[in-house]
Amino acid sequence: MKLPHAHTIHAHDGHLGWNRALRPVLRASSGDTVTFCCRDAGNGHYHHASTSHDVTTSDPADANPLTGPLFVEGAMPGDALKVTVNEFAPSGFGWTAIIPGFGLLSDQFVMPKLKLWNYETDVATPAVFNSLARVPLRPFIGTIGVAPMEPGNHSVIPPRRIGGNMDIRDIAAGTVLYLPVEVEGALLSVGDCHAAQGDGEVCGTAIETAMDVSLTVEVIKDAAPRTPHFITPGPISRHLDSAGYDVTTGIGPDLMQAARDAVSHMIDLLARTRNLNAEDAYMLCSVCGDLKISEIVDAPNWVVSFYFPRIVFE
Amino acid sequence: MKLPHAHTIHAHDGHLGWNRALRPVLRASSGDTVTFCCRDAGNGHYHHASTSHDVTTSDPADANPLTGPLFVEGAMPGDALKVTVNEFAPSGFGWTAIIPGFGLLSDQFVMPKLKLWNYETDVATPAVFNSLARVPLRPFIGTIGVAPMEPGNHSVIPPRRIGGNMDIRDIAAGTVLYLPVEVEGALLSVGDCHAAQGDGEVCGTAIETAMDVSLTVEVIKDAAPRTPHFITPGPISRHLDSAGYDVTTGIGPDLMQAARDAVSHMIDLLARTRNLNAEDAYMLCSVCGDLKISEIVDAPNWVVSFYFPRIVFE
Repeated sequence: MKLPHAHTIHAHDGHLGWNRALRPVLRASSGDTVTFCCRDAGNGHYHHASTSHDVTTSDPADANPLTGPLFVEGAMPGDALKVTVNEFAPSGFGWTAIIPGFGLLSDQFVMPKLKLWNYETDVATPAVFNSLARVPLRPFIGTIGVAPMEPGNHSVIPPRRIGGNMDIRDIAAGTVLYLPVEVEGALLSVGDCHAAQGDGEVCGTAIETAMDVSLTVEVIKDAAPRTPHFITPGPISRHLDSAGYDVTTGIGPDLMQAARDAVSHMIDLLARTRNLNAEDAYMLCSVCGDLKISEIVDAPNWVVSFYFPRIVFE
Repeated sequence: MKLPHAHTIHAHDGHLGWNRALRPVLRASSGDTVTFCCRDAGNGHYHHASTSHDVTTSDPADANPLTGPLFVEGAMPGDALKVTVNEFAPSGFGWTAIIPGFGLLSDQFVMPKLKLWNYETDVATPAVFNSLARVPLRPFIGTIGVAPMEPGNHSVIPPRRIGGNMDIRDIAAGTVLYLPVEVEGALLSVGDCHAAQGDGEVCGTAIETAMDVSLTVEVIKDAAPRTPHFITPGPISRHLDSAGYDVTTGIGPDLMQAARDAVSHMIDLLARTRNLNAEDAYMLCSVCGDLKISEIVDAPNWVVSFYFPRIVFE
């Protein structure tokens, strides 16, 4: 797929980290549509012949490059930047990794592991994980944000008030996102696209992939949200839900531990019932399983549930 | 709707709290189907003429009565009790309350408030909240569990390793639940049914309602899960998702605070855009909005999102 190229920011116009002092690489008016050509979160480190060993040679300082920033005329602190996600042109090549020291269960998964994906660029066909499992695709933007008001360079890894590395799986085609503008021109940047991911991104990576993204930007005066919010125009799980879910739980007074327990229990369940090794189960959980807070009021114990879509094995 | 009555446990055969010393009120064989007649979580305190004042006269010690326990022949510690949820016969009357000192935002909502619901017992028609909002229904079991091995009486309010007050909105018709048996006969009890609830049950109550529940019980030897898990046979959100979602976020290093922020932001959004007062918005969030952990790996900040189904206003 080719996206509109009248306004395009190419992948070499990138940066690492958020910084209000960055020079804009393109200027747009409110209402313009712009194509962002985004590198993958590994910044091109992985290719078709990569192996798990290559996870150890990836430099974290190069991770999660952003394309931009885009200066939007008229955007001022206190405004909302309304971003409509039009469409994606994904590359067809992706990767998922277990990176030592990173991920929800990094204490249990200490060895590097790499899974490469080749998928149809129309994303209509589930991507093959192995002979047992296929993952339905739904591309989205992992990292999208504007420059924070505080001077200096700010790491791109943690998400922030201004958005950034939110990894929300529903910032997909058709979604309308509202970001709080903190500097003149907003300085919008985009990156870290994913072909699929579940809520939580539990192993730390999704189906990481290079992608071109078409966005329409508009300035809404004096409407900055306190944190990003968005509207999805329709269903969000129909690519996954037709065969139902296996669900495990974590129950206790700490949401983080409950989340860890729910995912650990799912890895055990998948290993036992689906003939997967633990590393494969963990990566599959990351690319298509969802962490939900089922109950957060029956003190002192909360319930976090992990939903794994059964269609993956059908 | 009338459910099968060959094996029925009536609502007067109830108890408060979990206790392995309780005398079973019925014995069943593995494979039997049993109807549990469940009181509402308010134990009959509310009726068609109740007002918000009545929230203050409800005795917490009477809350969340359970119907049972059922002794299942052959169930021994270490086994799994497999429970298939067959169908529900709901009463048609329900309530939702803001109870001072209870709920995710109990610091912000300090006054009691009661909302009464009258809904069609076939649950095919959304329940009317007010002239603006209607809530699609999907009945489920809020509290289901077996007796814990530890002697004594244990509060029914917090969920536990053996299940209990999990308030998982997908323990609905067709779901197959696996509970860990800890005492001979399992001692299954059921209560706290809801006509609708979102993930989180954020105000502390759902559409609380009396309901008869038909369950089939089976013993699976030596298969006790560490915490409950379940299988849903198909989609779980189709009653809600056709018009998409409004989504707010909470971003930060603490999942509980992020959840509180996401819900607070949604209440503000609904109040501003849907002409609701804050109390009504909070109660609506509880009965149909979902808390999701979007990202739990991009240290030090996590993203909790709150999804509100737009169909409620259509």
